[in-house]
Amino acid sequence: MLEGFVAGEPGDKHELRTETKELQARLMGQQQLLREKKLPVLVLIEGWAAAGKGSLIKELISEMDPRFYNVVSPAILPERETRYPFLYPYATEIPENGKVVFLDSGWMESTVRKAMKMEISKGEYKRRVRAVNEFERQLRDGGYLVLKIFMHIDKKEQFERLKELSENADTEWRVNPDDLWQHREYKRFLKAYDDFMDETGEAAPWHVVDGKHRKTAVRDTLKLLVGEIDRGLERGRYNGEPFEEKFPLLEMPLLKDVDLSVQISDEDYKRELKKLQKRLGELHNILYRRKIPVILCYEGWDAAGKGGNIRRVAYPLDPRGVDVKPIASPEPHELNRQYLWRFWTRLPRSGHICIFDRTWYGRVMVERLEGFCTEKDWKRAYNEINEFERQLTEWGAVVLKFWIHIDSDTQLARFTDRQNTPEKQWKITDEDWRNREKWPQYEEAVDEMIQKTSTEYAPWFIIESNDKKYARIKALQIIVKALEEACENHFENSFE
Amino acid sequence: MLEGFVAGEPGDKHELRTETKELQARLMGQQQLLREKKLPVLVLIEGWAAAGKGSLIKELISEMDPRFYNVVSPAILPERETRYPFLYPYATEIPENGKVVFLDSGWMESTVRKAMKMEISKGEYKRRVRAVNEFERQLRDGGYLVLKIFMHIDKKEQFERLKELSENADTEWRVNPDDLWQHREYKRFLKAYDDFMDETGEAAPWHVVDGKHRKTAVRDTLKLLVGEIDRGLERGRYNGEPFEEKFPLLEMPLLKDVDLSVQISDEDYKRELKKLQKRLGELHNILYRRKIPVILCYEGWDAAGKGGNIRRVAYPLDPRGVDVKPIASPEPHELNRQYLWRFWTRLPRSGHICIFDRTWYGRVMVERLEGFCTEKDWKRAYNEINEFERQLTEWGAVVLKFWIHIDSDTQLARFTDRQNTPEKQWKITDEDWRNREKWPQYEEAVDEMIQKTSTEYAPWFIIESNDKKYARIKALQIIVKALEEACENHFENSFE
Repeated sequence: MLEGFVAGEPGDKHELRTETKELQARLMGQQQLLREKKLPVLVLIEGWAAAGKGSLIKELISEMDPRFYNVVSPAILPERETRYPFLYPYATEIPENGKVVFLDSGWMESTVRKAMKMEISKGEYKRRVRAVNEFERQLRDGGYLVLKIFMHIDKKEQFERLKELSENADTEWRVNPDDLWQHREYKRFLKAYDDFMDETGEAAPWHVVDGKHRKTAVRDTLKLLVGEIDRGLERGRYNGEPFEEKFPLLEMPLLKDVDLSVQISDEDYKRELKKLQKRLGELHNILYRRKIPVILCYEGWDAAGKGGNIRRVAYPLDPRGVDVKPIASPEPHELNRQYLWRFWTRLPRSGHICIFDRTWYGRVMVERLEGFCTEKDWKRAYNEINEFERQLTEWGAVVLKFWIHIDSDTQLARFTDRQNTPEKQWKITDEDWRNREKWPQYEEAVDEMIQKTSTEYAPWFIIESNDKKYARIKALQIIVKALEEACENHFENSFE
Repeated sequence: MLEGFVAGEPGDKHELRTETKELQARLMGQQQLLREKKLPVLVLIEGWAAAGKGSLIKELISEMDPRFYNVVSPAILPERETRYPFLYPYATEIPENGKVVFLDSGWMESTVRKAMKMEISKGEYKRRVRAVNEFERQLRDGGYLVLKIFMHIDKKEQFERLKELSENADTEWRVNPDDLWQHREYKRFLKAYDDFMDETGEAAPWHVVDGKHRKTAVRDTLKLLVGEIDRGLERGRYNGEPFEEKFPLLEMPLLKDVDLSVQISDEDYKRELKKLQKRLGELHNILYRRKIPVILCYEGWDAAGKGGNIRRVAYPLDPRGVDVKPIASPEPHELNRQYLWRFWTRLPRSGHICIFDRTWYGRVMVERLEGFCTEKDWKRAYNEINEFERQLTEWGAVVLKFWIHIDSDTQLARFTDRQNTPEKQWKITDEDWRNREKWPQYEEAVDEMIQKTSTEYAPWFIIESNDKKYARIKALQIIVKALEEACENHFENSFE
C-alpha cells in the first residue's frame, strides 16, 4: 500500500480550514449517537517516526468531550522488560461502549519494530500477525468499530522533519536513536510496513493517510473517521457469526460417563498432600526465576469443592508470586467492554501464578443459559476462547483448566448441610437452588464446552470431587506434572 | 520497641498446633462478619529481611476465602524509578469494604530503607513520616481497621536465616545485597525501625511479633489479628471526628462578592489564546523532560463552561503527556473504598498533566448536600483534602484549582438555550434543573470549601465565566504563570 504512494497537494488553505472545522463539528455531534447506540470505537494511529501522529490526535480530539474519548500511548518496551503477552497493552485499553480510544501507535509498530530489530523470530512474527488478526476480528464481532490509520511520509519528508526536531533545543530530545535508525533503514521499513498491512487487513482494513501536509492530513483523517463512524452508526453494533477453525482438540468423556466413585484413604491423602505441596513449592521457585506464567482455571458445580481445592494448591506457594482471582458477575464498567477484557486485565505477570476461581467460560455457561448474551455470542465464544488461550500459551504460559465434578445427589447433600449449619449458611443462596433446577441444561452446556475447548495446549481436566480429598490430590498431581514439564521445556528452549 | 526485646520460647508443639488451627478457624468465621459490617481491614506486615514475612502471610490466609482477601507485595523501586508519590503503591491497594488486604512490607520499609541509603533527605524523611500518619488516620477515620505488625528477629537469628537461604541452591537467589547490607548494619537499622515506630503509632499502633520460632510467630500474629478484628467488629465502622490543623490558607472572596461583569473582546481573545497556548505547549515540553507532575482541578456551576475551558487548555498539549479525567458518580467498587481512592488511582505519572473535570471536592459539595456521606465525613474532608494536596505538592506536583463561576441568571439562560437547541439537548438533564433549585445551598458549600481549602501550595482560583472567553484566557494565564514558576524552581532545586 505504501510502495509507489504519491503525496498529494495541500490545496486551498481557506477551504481546508472550513472543511476541517465542519468535520470537527460533525465528530462532536457523533459522540452522542455513539453513546446512544453503545458503539465503541478503537482508532489505531500508526505511521513513520516524525510523521506527526501526536499532533494529528491533538486535532482529532480538539472538539471532543473528554468524557467520551481517551488517548493511550503504550510504550514499546524492550522484549526483556515485557512481563505480559504482547497484545496486553492494547487489549487492556479498549474503549467502553459508546466511547472512543485513540491508540498512539500500537500492535503494528511493536510487531514490526521488534521483527526489524530481530528481537523476535520469524515464527514469532507470524504468530503475532495471527494473534493480531484474531484480536481485531474478536473486537469487530463483539460490536467494536476498529479503524486503522497509517500516517505516511516519504524518506525526504522524514529527513526534513527529523532535522527540524533536532535543530530545536526544545524538541531535540524527541528524536531518539531508533528514529534515526528507522530513517537509515527507510526502504526496509517500507517493505515491512507494507507486508504487515497486507497480512492484517481481514477484519479491519488499513487506511493510509498522506502525512506530507499536516493540515491536509488532519482533514483527511477526520473525513475518514467521520465517514466510518457514520457507517458504523447506520449499521449498528455488529454481532459476528460463529466461525470454524481447526484446533488440536483432545478427546474428552461426557460428564455422565465419569466414574465418581473414586476415593482416597485419609492416610494416603495426608501423605500425598504433603509430598505434592512440597514439590509444588519447589517448582514455584523455579518458575518464578524463569519467569514462566501459570494460569489455573477452576470451574465446577456449586458446592463441588472448588474453594477447598484452590486453597490446597495456593497454600505452598509464595504469596508474593500467586494471586487467586475470584470472578463474580461483571461490574458495570466490565459489562461495557468486550467480555474477555476483564480477564486480560487480570492476567498474571510472567513468573507469577494466577488461579481463577471461575473464568471466561462463564460466557458459555451462565451467560448462555441466562440469556446474558446472544446465541451468536456464546457460539462464537468457543473458538474465541481457544484463540485467547493459544495466545496465552504462545506467550509461554502454562494453562490448565479444571472442571470440579460431583453428581446431583452429592450437591443436594452438601446444600442441605450448608442450609442446616449456621456457620455455612452464607455459602448457600436462593440462586444456588435456582441453578440446581437447571442441572440438565448446565450439564449440556458443560459437556459442549469441554468437547469444544479442550485443546492440547490448554486442556480440561475433569476432577472427580464426590470425595473432595481425592479431587485435591488429583488436581495437585496434574499441576505438579505440568509444571515439571514446563520447567524442563523451558530449560531446553532457553539460552541459559 | 525493639531495643531490649527478648525472644520467647516455642512452647509445647501440640498445644501450639491446636491453638493455631482454632485461630485459623475463627479468622475464617470472621470473614462473613466483616462482610456484613462492611468493615475493611488493612494488615501491614513489616520486619527484618529473612524474618519470614512471606511464610507468615501464607499461614494467615491458608483457611481464608480468596474472595475476601488480597496479598499485595509492592516492589521497593529505586527513587529515580518511582513516578508517583511514595504512598501511591499502598494508597491504590487499600481493601474494599468487608475485605482484607495483607501488605507484604509497605510504607515503613520503603521510608526507612531509603533514609538509610540516604536516597531521601532528613527533611523528606520527616515529611514522609507526617504523610504516613495522615494516611493511617484518614483510613481509620474512614472506617478502616489498620493493623501494623513488625516481625522481629535478632541479629544472630537473621544470620542463621540468611545463611540457610544462601546455602540452598533453590533459595539462594532470594538473598539480595540489600539484605546482607541490612545484616551488617543491623544495629543502625534497629534504631531506625524503632524511631519510625515511635513516630507513627498515633492512629494505628504497632505490634511487634517475635519471629524467632516460626510457628509461634504464626500463632501470635493470628491471635493479634483475630483479637483486633473481634474488637473492630464489636465497635463497628469508626467515623472520625473533624480535626483542626493549621494550613497556610489564602484569603479568598465570597462568591457573591465576585464581579462577573468582566469581559474580553474577540480580538484580544484570539490574540491571547494563540499566545498562551503556544507558551503552554513549550512549557509542557520542559515539564515533561523535568518530570514535573501537574494536576489541574476544575469545579464549577453546571453550564459554567468547564468543558470548553478544559479543551482550550488541553489543545496545545501533547496528547501523550496529558489526560483529561472526567469524574462521574462513583462505581460500586469505588464506593466501597475510602473516598480518595478513586483519585489516587487516577494520579498522573510525573511529567504528565492531569486535568480533573470535577474532583475530590465532590465530597464537600454534592455528597454533603445529597447526604451521600455523614456530616462528620464532609466536615473532616476539608483538612483531609488539604493533607492530600500537600502530599501531592511535596511529591513535586503543581496543583491548581479552578472554580468556574457564573451567576444564576446566566445559568438559566444557558439551560434554556440547551433545552431549545436540538444538538445541545443531551447536555441538559432533569438533575441539572434539580441542582439549580439548590443554588443557595451549593453557594454556601462552595464558599465554605474555598475558604477552607485554598492553601498557598494548592490555591483556588475563582474564574469569572459569564464571558466564557474571558474565563478561558484567565485560566490559561494562571496555568502558564504557575508552570513557568515551577520550571524555574525545579531548575534551581535540581542537581542538573
